[in-house]
Amino acid sequence: MRLEDLPIRDDLRGRSPYGAPQIDVPVRLNTNENPYGPSASLVADLAEAVRHGAAGLNRYPDRDALALRRDLASYLGHGLTVEQVWAANGSNEVLQQILQVFGGPGRSALGFEPSYSMHPIITTGASTEWISGAREEDFGLDPGKAIAAIEEHRPDVVFLTSPNNPTGTALDPAVIARIVEAAPGMVVVDEAYFEFARTGTPSALTLLPDNPRLIVTRTMSKAFAMAGTRLGYLAAHPSVIEALLLVRLPYHLSTLTQAAARVALAHRAELLGTVDTLRAERDATVEWLRGKGLQVADSDANFVLFGRFADRHAVWQAVLDRGVLIREVGPPEWLRVSIGTTEEMAAFRAALEGIL
Amino acid sequence: MRLEDLPIRDDLRGRSPYGAPQIDVPVRLNTNENPYGPSASLVADLAEAVRHGAAGLNRYPDRDALALRRDLASYLGHGLTVEQVWAANGSNEVLQQILQVFGGPGRSALGFEPSYSMHPIITTGASTEWISGAREEDFGLDPGKAIAAIEEHRPDVVFLTSPNNPTGTALDPAVIARIVEAAPGMVVVDEAYFEFARTGTPSALTLLPDNPRLIVTRTMSKAFAMAGTRLGYLAAHPSVIEALLLVRLPYHLSTLTQAAARVALAHRAELLGTVDTLRAERDATVEWLRGKGLQVADSDANFVLFGRFADRHAVWQAVLDRGVLIREVGPPEWLRVSIGTTEEMAAFRAALEGIL
Repeated sequence: MRLEDLPIRDDLRGRSPYGAPQIDVPVRLNTNENPYGPSASLVADLAEAVRHGAAGLNRYPDRDALALRRDLASYLGHGLTVEQVWAANGSNEVLQQILQVFGGPGRSALGFEPSYSMHPIITTGASTEWISGAREEDFGLDPGKAIAAIEEHRPDVVFLTSPNNPTGTALDPAVIARIVEAAPGMVVVDEAYFEFARTGTPSALTLLPDNPRLIVTRTMSKAFAMAGTRLGYLAAHPSVIEALLLVRLPYHLSTLTQAAARVALAHRAELLGTVDTLRAERDATVEWLRGKGLQVADSDANFVLFGRFADRHAVWQAVLDRGVLIREVGPPEWLRVSIGTTEEMAAFRAALEGIL
Repeated sequence: MRLEDLPIRDDLRGRSPYGAPQIDVPVRLNTNENPYGPSASLVADLAEAVRHGAAGLNRYPDRDALALRRDLASYLGHGLTVEQVWAANGSNEVLQQILQVFGGPGRSALGFEPSYSMHPIITTGASTEWISGAREEDFGLDPGKAIAAIEEHRPDVVFLTSPNNPTGTALDPAVIARIVEAAPGMVVVDEAYFEFARTGTPSALTLLPDNPRLIVTRTMSKAFAMAGTRLGYLAAHPSVIEALLLVRLPYHLSTLTQAAARVALAHRAELLGTVDTLRAERDATVEWLRGKGLQVADSDANFVLFGRFADRHAVWQAVLDRGVLIREVGPPEWLRVSIGTTEEMAAFRAALEGIL
């Protein structure tokens, strides 16, 4: 019995599991993790919260995660309340729930590529047709063309990624507003990297009051440095949250996850304190790469896309051979490097310099 | 904007979110939780594991949860290895992944009802047709009729629940073997309550070596008293695990969940030590209810289904008014009580006695 002998869905045949190679090397700059681990005081608070909550681990968690959602609403600001916020195991699960409610057989979702590669995977996983829209040569979004694509395909869900992954730039909220107006269904703005955006970049959260078909997703995996906790969340109109309750698996969010996310939110000043350091390191990386004569996409995120390499795999491998793991992702001829510590970025520069 | 104004999938319209009422009363016997919380030593080990793992929380978890799967395989025995075991956030997510791989549009799943009410919900959530097969008057499964239903409908997935929830009895593996042989696709045996089965009841795990289309699911929520940890798992042929990797959301299982489940498995002797106590309490509850002239289904689980009541809601409410929360679920005229501590069961008996 082999995989191909099993009665799996036809559209899964021949596919490979998603995921960046998990290779154990000294410098890992491939999955846009935050390089700074939690402080001793955060770890102590977390252990204490677990010790406190563990006594009740034989009981199911709060199915609606109300305390956590209240804390998330307070963090997001913009006057948001618990009824407008939802959370799940990573923004992947948040996105899957959105597709289960607003997608499905006979429905479609449109995204503008290159973008986050999980969007089409989650879409097709939810038996929804994926429509690939295009970005400009500079990876920007032309609002006129985007709206024309929406009017042509009439998708049930539109994905916008701001800042975009893997290219790095944020969208102007005015463009998002025009797209929401043109879209016949829901518009999801994936703001996984929003906290890293350049100063003055407004969040799509500012558009929520006027747009009940808008959903803004976030994560604690990046700026909050909590990738291991798996906590994604979203803000939307209260009726969108009601709709998500129809498909969420009951008790999807464990007692430990809810507790850990609340401890992290209580330590937000410390955790988000790394953001400025990473932004400065990012801007320096962009400058250094440009100084080397490379093309570099503007970045509002904790990664930088650079190129172009006729054989990007060879460059990726050569950098890896020097102990630095970056990511072969996005448009051909380009590579992505996550922003690490000052020492890690020095190692990256040294590795790349040895190749160029 | 109300929920009904949103462009949700048509088959979700008019639905209510799944879930037992979460009511704060002294005695909660409604969701088949284990009433015994973890020991001080388990809690201390858990806090220590979290303290240890927390330093790396800025990194994503092991996407394949290999160490945990190895521990689960060792717990299950039957010669199982890590390649034959998979885990997710509760057996609900395990079941959803199975449906995403083996179900989907144009496909169907068949279960024999009354049974676990999440089976049809997860099935339709994965855009798969649900076919309701029947059980006998005594809630048993007639193999001849079950096979006839399978031959009539040719479902892609068959659900068997052993011990069955909410009725309580386990299936004879010989019956399961006949059904696997007759089924054209996959057969899922949901053994969430297996550890509570009466002595000598064999697990469907014994059938795995000969049946690559068989999947046996388990959970740590019941006998392991870890409902708050949300850890479900399954055993199957290695190619089934390969297939699940095609749909699992990357990094679906957090670092904390993996660590907590491993600590619980290391404390398995202590945790499973509650099983004998609960089985004795269950058998006493069955006898007491029968002594009161009630009908009671045989139980291999940590709950008992009893009836019949012309107005079961009135009985449920009257018991609740006396501070004991039981469950209005399953066939009409029947109620389900989870097995709690000796004190909790005394409170249940007193409450019911006041009504009968």
